[in-house]
Amino acid sequence: MATVQLFVPILDLGGTFVFAISGAVAAVNRRLDIFGILVLSFVTGNFGGIARDVLIGAVPPAALSEIRYLLVSVIAGLITFFWYSGVDRLRSPVLLFDAAGLAFFAVAGAQKAIEFGLSPVMAALLGMLTGIGGGVTRDVLLAEIPHVLRSDLYAVAALAGASIVVVGDMLGISYEVSALIGGAL
Amino acid sequence: MATVQLFVPILDLGGTFVFAISGAVAAVNRRLDIFGILVLSFVTGNFGGIARDVLIGAVPPAALSEIRYLLVSVIAGLITFFWYSGVDRLRSPVLLFDAAGLAFFAVAGAQKAIEFGLSPVMAALLGMLTGIGGGVTRDVLLAEIPHVLRSDLYAVAALAGASIVVVGDMLGISYEVSALIGGAL
Amino acid sequence: MATVQLFVPILDLGGTFVFAISGAVAAVNRRLDIFGILVLSFVTGNFGGIARDVLIGAVPPAALSEIRYLLVSVIAGLITFFWYSGVDRLRSPVLLFDAAGLAFFAVAGAQKAIEFGLSPVMAALLGMLTGIGGGVTRDVLLAEIPHVLRSDLYAVAALAGASIVVVGDMLGISYEVSALIGGAL
Repeated sequence: MATVQLFVPILDLGGTFVFAISGAVAAVNRRLDIFGILVLSFVTGNFGGIARDVLIGAVPPAALSEIRYLLVSVIAGLITFFWYSGVDRLRSPVLLFDAAGLAFFAVAGAQKAIEFGLSPVMAALLGMLTGIGGGVTRDVLLAEIPHVLRSDLYAVAALAGASIVVVGDMLGISYEVSALIGGAL
Repeated sequence: MATVQLFVPILDLGGTFVFAISGAVAAVNRRLDIFGILVLSFVTGNFGGIARDVLIGAVPPAALSEIRYLLVSVIAGLITFFWYSGVDRLRSPVLLFDAAGLAFFAVAGAQKAIEFGLSPVMAALLGMLTGIGGGVTRDVLLAEIPHVLRSDLYAVAALAGASIVVVGDMLGISYEVSALIGGAL
Repeated sequence: MATVQLFVPILDLGGTFVFAISGAVAAVNRRLDIFGILVLSFVTGNFGGIARDVLIGAVPPAALSEIRYLLVSVIAGLITFFWYSGVDRLRSPVLLFDAAGLAFFAVAGAQKAIEFGLSPVMAALLGMLTGIGGGVTRDVLLAEIPHVLRSDLYAVAALAGASIVVVGDMLGISYEVSALIGGAL
C-alpha cells in the first residue's frame, strides 16, 4: 500500500506536468497573456483529476489540497512562457503531450476509482475521464470543439490504459505492474 | 416508497435514452467519429443528472455507479450511428428528443431533490437543471450557444414539469400522479 | 463569529448582484430572450460560489440551499431586461460589474475556504476561482474565450484581494478589516 501511495502521485504529477505544458502551448498559440497561460496550465493539468475527485466524493480534490500540483502546473506554464521556442521545436507538442498525459492520468484515475470502490467498468471510464478531462476543459475554454472528440486515438488509448489497470486489479496483479503496462500502451 | 424507487429510475432511463439520441444526432451532424458520438451520447444523456447529484451531494452520481445509464447511452449512440437515416427521418429529431428528455428529467430531478431535503423552489430549479444540463453541456462541447438559452419553450416546459411535481409533493399527492401530470406537460 | 456569519453573506450577495447584472447585460447583447437572460444572471452570479462549494465539499451549495441568491439574481436580471438603457448608460458595464463582483467574491471565497480548513495558498486560489468562475461560465455559455483569460487585470485583482484576506487571517487580523482592505483593492 505504501508503494501505491507513492506511485499514484508520481503518475499524477507526471501527467499534470505534460498536460500543463499542453495547456500552456495552446494558450500561447491563442495569444493569451501570462495569467491566461498559467490558468490554462493549471486547468489542463488538473481538471481531469478534479472532476474525478468531485465525482467520487474525494473533496477537496487532491489538486487543491496539495500544493505540489499547483507548483508543477505553474512551473510548466513558466517554462512554456519563457522558453516557448524550445517547447515548440518538439513536433506538434500539444498532441505529443496530450497523449503522454493521457496515459499517465488514465492509469492513475482508474486506480483511485478502484480504491474508492467503484465497479470495474466505471473505474475504467473514470480513468478515461481523468485522462481526457483536462484537455476537454482546455478546448472548451478556448471555444473549440475538444480535439479528443475528433480523434479516436487518444480516447481509445486512455480507455485501454485504464482498462488494463482494472483488469490487472481483478486478476490480483500488483498496481505497479499493471500501471506500467497500461501506461506503456 | 418501493414504487418511487422503481419509478424514478424508469423516468431517468427514459430521459437518458432520448437525450442520448439527441446528443448522438448533434455529434453526427458535426461529423464527429464514433468515439465522439458515444461521448456526446453519454454526456447529453447523463450530465444533467450528474450535475444534480454532485450539487446535492449524492456522490458518486447514479449515472456512474449504476451501469444501466452507460448501457442505455451507448445503445442510443450505436442506434444513431448505424441507423442515422432512420433516426433522421423523424422531423427535427434533436428538438423533439430534447423536449421529451426534458420532461422526463425535470420530473425525476425534482423528485430526487425533494428526497434530499431541498426546499420546494430549489427542487424545482434542480429539476430544471437536470432537464437542461445535458443539452447545455452538449452544446458547450460543440462550441455553440446552448439552444435552451435561445428558445424559452423547453426551459419553461422543464420548469413547469418540475414545479408540478414539487407542488404535488407539498399537497401530499403521490409521486406517481404528479410525475405523470408533470411529464405530460 | 456572529459578525462573520453576517458579513460573508453580505459580500456574497453584493457580488452576486453585480455579477448577475454583468451576465444579464452579456445575454442582452447576444440577443438571448428573457429566460436566457435569467439563466445567465443566475449562472454568472452564482457559479463561482457553487464551484467553490462543490470543491470544498459544502453541498448543497449555499446558492442552491438559500433562496436569497436566486432572488438577487432574478432581480438583477429583471432590472437589466426592463431597464437596459439605464444599465447600459454606465460605461462598459460588463467590465465595471465584473471588477466589482470579483473583489466581493474573492474576499468571500477566501474566507469560506479558510473556514473549511484549506491551506492559505489554496484558500487564495479558491477565492480567485470564486471571483472568476461566474464570468468564465458566462463566457463559455456564450461560446467565447473568457475575458478574464485575456485581461490580467481582473484575475490579479481577485488574487490580490483573496491573498490579503488569507494573510490577514494568518496574522490574526479580524475578517472584517482584512476583507475591507481586500475588497477595496
